[in-house]
This record gives sequence, structure tokens and C-alpha cells, in this order.
Amino acid sequence: MSKFILNINCPDKKGIIATVTNFIHLNAGNILYIDQYVDRENKLFFMRLECEFINGDFSEQQFRTTFNEAVVQQFDLNYELYNQEDRPKMALFVSKYDHCLYDILARYEADELKVEIPFILSNHEDLKGIAERFDLPFYHVPVTKETKAEAEQQQLEVLKKHEVECIVLARYMQIISPQLIEHYPNKIINIHHSFLPAFPGAKPYHSAYNRGVKIIGATSHYVTEELDAGPIIAQDITQVSHLHSVGDFIAKGRDLERIVLSKAIQLHTNRKVMVYQNKTVIFS
Amino acid sequence: MSKFILNINCPDKKGIIATVTNFIHLNAGNILYIDQYVDRENKLFFMRLECEFINGDFSEQQFRTTFNEAVVQQFDLNYELYNQEDRPKMALFVSKYDHCLYDILARYEADELKVEIPFILSNHEDLKGIAERFDLPFYHVPVTKETKAEAEQQQLEVLKKHEVECIVLARYMQIISPQLIEHYPNKIINIHHSFLPAFPGAKPYHSAYNRGVKIIGATSHYVTEELDAGPIIAQDITQVSHLHSVGDFIAKGRDLERIVLSKAIQLHTNRKVMVYQNKTVIFS
Amino acid sequence: MSKFILNINCPDKKGIIATVTNFIHLNAGNILYIDQYVDRENKLFFMRLECEFINGDFSEQQFRTTFNEAVVQQFDLNYELYNQEDRPKMALFVSKYDHCLYDILARYEADELKVEIPFILSNHEDLKGIAERFDLPFYHVPVTKETKAEAEQQQLEVLKKHEVECIVLARYMQIISPQLIEHYPNKIINIHHSFLPAFPGAKPYHSAYNRGVKIIGATSHYVTEELDAGPIIAQDITQVSHLHSVGDFIAKGRDLERIVLSKAIQLHTNRKVMVYQNKTVIFS
Amino acid sequence: MSKFILNINCPDKKGIIATVTNFIHLNAGNILYIDQYVDRENKLFFMRLECEFINGDFSEQQFRTTFNEAVVQQFDLNYELYNQEDRPKMALFVSKYDHCLYDILARYEADELKVEIPFILSNHEDLKGIAERFDLPFYHVPVTKETKAEAEQQQLEVLKKHEVECIVLARYMQIISPQLIEHYPNKIINIHHSFLPAFPGAKPYHSAYNRGVKIIGATSHYVTEELDAGPIIAQDITQVSHLHSVGDFIAKGRDLERIVLSKAIQLHTNRKVMVYQNKTVIFS
Repeated sequence: MSKFILNINCPDKKGIIATVTNFIHLNAGNILYIDQYVDRENKLFFMRLECEFINGDFSEQQFRTTFNEAVVQQFDLNYELYNQEDRPKMALFVSKYDHCLYDILARYEADELKVEIPFILSNHEDLKGIAERFDLPFYHVPVTKETKAEAEQQQLEVLKKHEVECIVLARYMQIISPQLIEHYPNKIINIHHSFLPAFPGAKPYHSAYNRGVKIIGATSHYVTEELDAGPIIAQDITQVSHLHSVGDFIAKGRDLERIVLSKAIQLHTNRKVMVYQNKTVIFS
Repeated sequence: MSKFILNINCPDKKGIIATVTNFIHLNAGNILYIDQYVDRENKLFFMRLECEFINGDFSEQQFRTTFNEAVVQQFDLNYELYNQEDRPKMALFVSKYDHCLYDILARYEADELKVEIPFILSNHEDLKGIAERFDLPFYHVPVTKETKAEAEQQQLEVLKKHEVECIVLARYMQIISPQLIEHYPNKIINIHHSFLPAFPGAKPYHSAYNRGVKIIGATSHYVTEELDAGPIIAQDITQVSHLHSVGDFIAKGRDLERIVLSKAIQLHTNRKVMVYQNKTVIFS
Repeated sequence: MSKFILNINCPDKKGIIATVTNFIHLNAGNILYIDQYVDRENKLFFMRLECEFINGDFSEQQFRTTFNEAVVQQFDLNYELYNQEDRPKMALFVSKYDHCLYDILARYEADELKVEIPFILSNHEDLKGIAERFDLPFYHVPVTKETKAEAEQQQLEVLKKHEVECIVLARYMQIISPQLIEHYPNKIINIHHSFLPAFPGAKPYHSAYNRGVKIIGATSHYVTEELDAGPIIAQDITQVSHLHSVGDFIAKGRDLERIVLSKAIQLHTNRKVMVYQNKTVIFS
Repeated sequence: MSKFILNINCPDKKGIIATVTNFIHLNAGNILYIDQYVDRENKLFFMRLECEFINGDFSEQQFRTTFNEAVVQQFDLNYELYNQEDRPKMALFVSKYDHCLYDILARYEADELKVEIPFILSNHEDLKGIAERFDLPFYHVPVTKETKAEAEQQQLEVLKKHEVECIVLARYMQIISPQLIEHYPNKIINIHHSFLPAFPGAKPYHSAYNRGVKIIGATSHYVTEELDAGPIIAQDITQVSHLHSVGDFIAKGRDLERIVLSKAIQLHTNRKVMVYQNKTVIFS
């Protein structure tokens, strides 16, 4: 038996749902889950579908071939097809902070994440010990203003070698250059320690403290060329008061960062995110 | 043009979605929204669908006739069909507390609720002035242990006369008898001032205070024979601390009750709730 | 018996708490509540204290005289003293939206707010009927670009005539000029329909929608010369998703606005807010 | 310079705050923080105070001696005095679940917890590898119905040997006997995976699922003789829907358990919790 996830988007048009569901049905498949969304303003249609085929011979390749003929052209449709058994390879980039790293690794150990983590990469050596603790390869790629291009080239080689599908910046304190981003469009997940679009850039907890806000947040988003302006995947907040110092903001923020980043990772790796117009559709 | 909401449940079987969406498609209808859910454990299928038919002649009656033939028998399917233009008649039962009443009436005035409120009914006269303020009929039906059956008979007459579809107990401090409930199964919406199943029955804020909880809640549910044990529609909570007295719990709770009850009313009247096995499916 | 609220701030110095609590004690007073906060960075001390004097002769005037001599000079101390029985006069400014107005009036009726509302003022006539419903004077003061200065003069006269202590802008869609602000410094409470500092200015729900945020908020703050940049009193948020249109944001936001504005009103009128450096200390 | 935390409770009486703050003042101490609470119903007074003495000679012993004479008898006062530099020894009891354990250890490494962890103890060997990873001693003490008394004797010896101050049950799936509890009254911190008092005992996520709640929670409390009925330290909740299976509840609950347990640990070890009448006062 084969199980697939099918993510679709196309211009909104009558009959898409009927056509797609019929397609599954006619190929002896069963729909396990369907969720759709129509952006009425922009007349765009989105759908996520999980289906299974008792006939194990209905391979991913066969699905693609049949689907292309029967459905794709008729509706000018984009789609992604994933085999439910696949575990995407997810690289971890870190600097010196360990809280997000520990959280991801603990979840990885507990099998909460449907991924394979091929390595940890850092511009510093501080967290090497943690990689060793968890028996994971650790790449130390220092980055300076001068060596940045070179360093990214080195990163790219490691990424390619390990056939990485997505990159998680677990408080990696470096700006990713457009050159690297274009290799992984909507595949690099960052955690920013503020409630975006409030307080982008450096030292958001300090800015939040100075503004006297009563709530702080964290935001996970895909990395795009514009700093902290990519499509938002997940956000969460916690309450603060005048009693809390900047240090308290940072400590409380660590919990937010952990939760929000891991939520984004789960959404991404479960194929529940579709990106368009710098926004995300998050399927349930 | 006619617009419908179609809520479906049936045993889970291959091909339901394809069949139903095809049915809409073949009758020149367009699906505006589809959401479905499968309870795998109990093998039950649920779907909510909004659709429009450009051909205004495709009436509710016609839909029912065609749908019964084409789909219903094949899948042993239960369904509810609503015309999107209809506004259900919703009666308000109150006692002496006015906060939920005010909240509902303010939303009604602001056209946040897609209902018609034909009257307010109370076992006390305290809130009569508010009914007058909002130009709504007010029925005073006193209830004592001795007159309870009689009083409910009187209530039933008023309800029938106004062709009421659902009843909201906006802090109506009386237990509804099974006789009245059976006329309005899953149509009587109550707000209970605790995080059910914690603290059912009387004085939940006092019990919460005595237990020393750090969070209090409110729960809106359909009324069933067992007190405070009906299908839960909506819940929300707020934080409390040792600093808060029972009086503070009550004051904070008022905000919860307002929000949770109005949320439940909106879910119910937008036909987003399906009940089974004393639980609710809440469509998005 | 007389009851007072005493709010203090001064440079942080040893012995303040001992001196002030001793002062109460020596004058046969009893401390009912004490809360203090020290801003270590700026070396500032804040305290809020509730106390009662069994000797009813210990009047507000007597308190001030004795306190000035015994404590104030020694610590270079600013203080506000309030009689707990006093109900501040609070004016309501509105435009066309009624949800915050209804909410405040319902709470006022339910005696949730320790204030007196002398009147409602608006630049439009739309909400006049609500004022009448609640038997409150309604002033219609139209504002155009040309007549703004004049209109504010008129507002000021009404405010003075009614001896207003604070002004609540319950979705009053006009910018308050510095001339009016300086008569009511940290006494004009606004509700802004975003999670400040994100989305200041006009149409924040539209901006939030376009940015694709997953959480929206509301912020209540004191009005200062810079638009939406005054000291924040209260904030709250709610979750949104791609499923929500701008209209849904607006509808969900109404609940936030109600809750956050009324919370700010309660904090202000219970004398739990102290302002410094464009931030607030909120006592518990 | 010496820094202390002083926690006080006594019958409410005039002049306590003045007397205590004066005491600090007269001994050349400075109050860094003061928070108090009066339970008016039971006429009980609680205070938490942080103070420093520039004169380093003012030792803990000296504080106690002077304070006993000057204050304690006069007010029939109970107090706890802690040196701010001390790190309490906190034992970790676990069974097979690793998520809370990983979370605590990661925070410990990141120096978020002001404690010393002398060992991990478990009735199973499953998590031994994690103890090794973090270079912590691991005691395997199997428990069966027959050997329970014996096992607890063994536990007690390990606890005494390491001079443990408090015990954290990080999903330790055994009931603690009264014999062990009486050695550590209000010193054993448990995490229960429900929103107590809803769903005490075994399998709360299953019960929550069956009841159809829309919110699930976790509760950290001190262990007392009655199961899951001890003083509540911290609670938190998250939203669920009909879409979530029991498995989803469990997965979502893991995040709650982590957050709530670590919050309770921080409150306890920062000496911010006082227990009375099976409830907690939590200082800010």
C-alpha cells in the first residue's frame, strides 16, 4: 500500500475538487484527509490531500504521469507530491545559543520530528560538545565579513553532499546571502525573537523592553532576501510586565523560541505549508 | 443565485467526497468551501460544504430531491441543508445577570450575529428594562419548584409561537427539564462558568478558589439531561493567582462567559457544529 | 474610617519603605496592600499602597500635610493620594463604531467600573441613540480639517464643565491635538487595533492581513503627541490564519478591543498605573 | 556583602510591614524587593523580601538571632531565610518518558535553573543513556508492588546521602507513599498531564479526548497523600479540536508538561512559593 501527500494550487475554477477527488477514486485510491482554501480576492485555489492506494503498484511515478494527463493541464495546476514514508533531510545551523538546538535534538530523539538530521553546522565551536553528545556530525565553518562568500560555498558543499532538503536556523546569528537562499527557496526556516513585524533585526528584546510592551513574541518564517520579512509560518507570545528586565525577556523568550521553531519545523516537514505572495497557507 | 450550506455525516466509505462534489458540479453549482473530518476509530465521515448555484431555480426543495436520489441512499447519509440567507430565530433566556445579555444584544445591534431574536424570557423581572431599551418583547415566566412543569409549558408555547430554532441560556439559573430538552435537542446553548469537566454544578468560582487553581475557565455546551455534561462547543480560560478573591474570579469570569457564549452562538448559527457521541465537530 | 490609595515614585534610596510604612503605622493607620518596584537601571523607586485609618478624622488634607513634613522632602518624593470612595469622572469620545461603547456602558451598568460617566461626545450623530438608551447626555461636535481647533475648544469647555478627570477614546477616529493632550497628560486612554509597535496608524488590520501574521492584537495606551506611541497600558492578542479575511480580522479584533480597553480603564481608574519614561508600571 | 531571601507568614496584625522593614533598615540592610499578600478571609499575612547587607559580617546566623528577638515573637511569625547564593540540591525521578527530563537538563546546562542536580533516579533503565550523556549519576531502583517499601527505603538513602532539598517527578509513573512524602513535605514537585482538578489519576489525555474538551492542560503541584490533589504551583493549557486524536493530545501535552514543570521548578527554587491550606501563594 502506498500513501501520498498531494499539495495543489491553481487559479480558482469550477470543478477542481470534483476532478481531483474523482481522479483518486478512479485509481482505486482512498482520500484520508482533504483540506482546501480559496483566496477569493486573488482567485486562487489551494488544496492539501492525503490519500492511500491499496494497490502498492501505484507508484509516485505512476501518480505523476496519470495526474499530469488527467488533471494538471486542464486546471493550470501546480502540485507537490510526497510519499508519506519519506523523511526529509534537515540541516541545523547554530551559533552559540543552545536552547533551540537542545529542544530540536530532544524532540528528534523522542521521534516527534519526521526528519533525518544529517549534521549540525556552526560558525563557532561552542556547541560541538552537544553534537557529540547526540552522535551527530559537526561542521565548524567560521564566518567573517571577508570570508562570507567562501564560507557559504563551503556550507553549500556540505548541504549538497548530505542531500539536505531544508535548513533550520536554530538561532544562527548570521545573515544568509541571496546566493544561498536561491538554492533553498522557502526551505530555510528561521526563528526570530520578536513578534514580527515588530522589532525586526538585532536585539529585539531590548527594543521591546524600551518600548514598554506588555507582550513579547517569537516568529518563525522562511528566509527571504529582505531581513526578517519572509513568509510567517508560526508565531506565539507571552505576557511580560514592568517587573521583567531585559534578561527576563530573554529568558522567557527562550521558551517561545523553542515552541515556535519546533512548531514551524513540524508544519514544514509534514508538508502543511504552502507559500504564495510572501504569505503562508497552513493546512490543519 | 442560491447559496446553501450542506452538513453531512455517514459511515466512512470510499468515494463520498468525489460523489458529493461531483453532484454539485453536475448541477452547475460551485463549491465555495469544503471541510471534512473522518473519525477513524469509529469510521465516521463528516463534511461541511458551502456551495452556490448560478441558476436561481435550483431551490432548496430541488436540491433535496435530487440529492436524496443521487447520493443519500448510496452512502447511508444524514444531512442538513441550510439556505445561507436564512436567519434562525434565537430565544434568550436570562435570570438576573445582565453581562451576557448585554453582550449578545450589542453584537446583535452591530449585526455580528446572523440571527433574529424574537424575545427575551426570564424567571425574574430584573432585566425587563434592558429588553425595553433594545425594543424586544420580554416574557416574565416565574419558576418555583411547584410550578416548574407549568412554567415550562408556558415557555414552550412562547417558543412555538415565535417559531424559535434555538435557545440561548445567557446565565439562566434554572435547570432545563428533559421534557423541554427533547423539543430542542442540541439546540439549547448554555454557558457554564467553569472549565468543564472541572467544577460542574453550582458555585464553580467558589470551588475553583478553594482548590487554588491558577487558571479559570468558561464552557459553552449544548444542554442534555445530565447537568453540565452536554457536548462542548467552546471553552476559554484566563489566569488567576492567589491575589484574586472569589469576587475577582467572578469579575474575570464575566469576560470569559461573554466571549465563550458569543463564540458558541456564532458557531451554532453559522452551522459549523455537528454533534455525535456527546462531542462536537467544529468546522473552520 | 477613611481609606486611601497612595502612589509614590522617587529616586531609589535606602529606607523608603521603612519610612513610609512607619508613617502609616504611627498615624494609627493600617496597610491593606503594598506593592513596590525598583527600576535598577534608572535607580527609581515606585510604590502603591492602600491604607485605612480607623480614626475618620485623618482626612486627605491631614494626610498630605503630615506626609509632606515627615517623608516627602527627605526622599525627594512624588506622590498621588486618592480617597478610595472617589469615583473619577470619565468622558467617552466615540465616532461611528459602537462595540467598545456598548461594552463600556454594559460594564458601567453592571457596576464593574468605579467611575462616573458624565457624557458621550462624538464627531458623528450615529451613536446618539445609544446614549439615549443609557440616559446619558450626548454632545455632537463635528470635526473637519478647518474646524478642528474650534471643535477642540468646544470639547474642552464640555470637559471642564463636567469636571472630567480622564477621557476614553472608544474608537474615536480623530487625532487629538497637542493642545488638548496637555490638559490631560496621561489621562487620555486610546485603544489601537493592533499589537503596537506593529502597525501603527490607519488600517492596521489590513496591514496585518497583507503581512500574513498568525496573531493579531489590540493595544490600549495613553495618548501622547506622537501617534500611537504613548505609554502602553494593556495588550492582548488572538490567533488568526490564512482562512481569515480582513473582515474576519476586524470582527475578531472587536473582541480584543473591548477586552483590552476595558482592562486599561479599570487599571487607570483603580489607580494602578504609574507612567515614567513613556512606559507604565502596572501594580497588581 | 550578603544577600538574603526572607519569606514570612503570620496572623495579620497592624505594623508587621513597618516592623520588618525597620528591622532591615536598622541593621544597615537594603530592601531590594518586597511583595506581600493578605488573605483577608483567614486573616493571614504573607511576605517575601529580598535584602542585602553591605556589612558582609551580617551572617545568616546573625540574621536569625537578631530577627528572632526583634520580630518573631511579637507577631507569632513563621519564616524561612535563604542565602541567595545557595543552590538547592534537586533530585530527578523519571520512568520511561524523556521529554521533561531532556527539558530540565537542557535548562540546567544553559544555567536557567539555580540548582544542583546530584542524580537521576528511575524505576526503569530506559533513560540511563541520557544520564550518561549529561554526566550525571543514575540510580536504577526498580519498584514492584511487593518491593515498594524497600525501594522507597533505598530511595531515601540516596536522597539523604546527596543531601537533597527537593525532588522533581519528571513523569515518574509511580505513586509516592506517605512515608516518603513526610520526609519532603511541599518539596516533591509533580507534573500531572491534565488541567486539575479535571482528570486526576491515570490516562487523563484519554479522558479529555472522550469528554470532547476544546482545551487540554498540565498542572504542576506539590505531592501530598491524596493523589493529584496537592497545592497547585503552575498550570497552562493549549487548544485542541475534534481533529486531534489521543495521540495528538499526548504530543501537544508534552510541550505543556515541559513548560509547566520547568516553571514550577523555577518558582520553587527561587523561593517564590509559600504553601498554606493546600494552596500556594506565588510571589512575583
